[in-house]
Amino acid sequence: MKTEIGAVNALPTVTVLVGTNIDGKPTYTTIAWVGVIGRTSILISVNKQRYITSGIKKNRTFSINLPSENLVEKTDYCGIKSGKDVNKALLFSNFYGKLENAPMIQECPVNMECKVTEMFDTSTHDVFVGEIVATHCEDSALVDGNVSLGKMKPFLFSLTDKGYWKTGKKLANAWEIGKNIE
Amino acid sequence: MKTEIGAVNALPTVTVLVGTNIDGKPTYTTIAWVGVIGRTSILISVNKQRYITSGIKKNRTFSINLPSENLVEKTDYCGIKSGKDVNKALLFSNFYGKLENAPMIQECPVNMECKVTEMFDTSTHDVFVGEIVATHCEDSALVDGNVSLGKMKPFLFSLTDKGYWKTGKKLANAWEIGKNIE
Repeated sequence: MKTEIGAVNALPTVTVLVGTNIDGKPTYTTIAWVGVIGRTSILISVNKQRYITSGIKKNRTFSINLPSENLVEKTDYCGIKSGKDVNKALLFSNFYGKLENAPMIQECPVNMECKVTEMFDTSTHDVFVGEIVATHCEDSALVDGNVSLGKMKPFLFSLTDKGYWKTGKKLANAWEIGKNIE
Repeated sequence: MKTEIGAVNALPTVTVLVGTNIDGKPTYTTIAWVGVIGRTSILISVNKQRYITSGIKKNRTFSINLPSENLVEKTDYCGIKSGKDVNKALLFSNFYGKLENAPMIQECPVNMECKVTEMFDTSTHDVFVGEIVATHCEDSALVDGNVSLGKMKPFLFSLTDKGYWKTGKKLANAWEIGKNIE
């Protein structure tokens, strides 16, 4: 039996840490409102209240860092606390790649440096579209040269139950299992 | 050790089936390029080649259906095959809610009806932003009235390893576990 439960967003998303520089120093915030637009194009939606928005607008760059499940405590902390009040960069080893103002987190197995290509304004959130400039991956998360979700162990955020959820085992190969139907 | 692997999109996303009517009949396609913009605002990015784009543009509505892992075969099939060639609606029990042209899949535990509020054009994809009008949830996927990711059992798509991946157990409560740091 199905029940109509109102206009509820029930789409879970992978939890990421977004980084940028403010006053020349790295800062990060936790974002779950992310999405994919194209092969190298990613979208993040950041509450206007967040400290980090001024940095992203000024630099027109940001990083997306994918924490593994072992970083869940620090990741949640970066979502609760504002960079106005605490120095979140102290929680991590920070590094830079091709972009000067997009700090990345060494402890996250995968990091993507992005250049802002578009910005949209909503009543509550600043939406930034980023073009991926370079991706950095821990060697232990690569299988045959490709990032493996099973090694990366990202975790999901689900707004409806206010929880972080683990990712599990491989279920099937894409563009393959569906061929069984015919 | 980190390796730079080029501009690779390594953000996994939850796999969804998008529905709309074409010539008065329901059709579906599999999309993994989705995202969240706001509390009731969702984005889908659909390859321009896909049959479904004409329907969404005309109706200015679509549905997002979240398949559980038991639907992985049918979900992959809906990504491989075009609605031009096969009638995908025959794979499922279809139902409608508030919107006339947004068919939904009974077998998916969660369905969201959306009205298109914005459309963007990229070289390869049509990007649609949808406002959620109503969400329908299987009673067995509700816990205390809220959609539970653990009951819903959605699965992820990972472009980098061309795989579908299960979602796992609850890892922690959001806005809570981070309080341990202080």
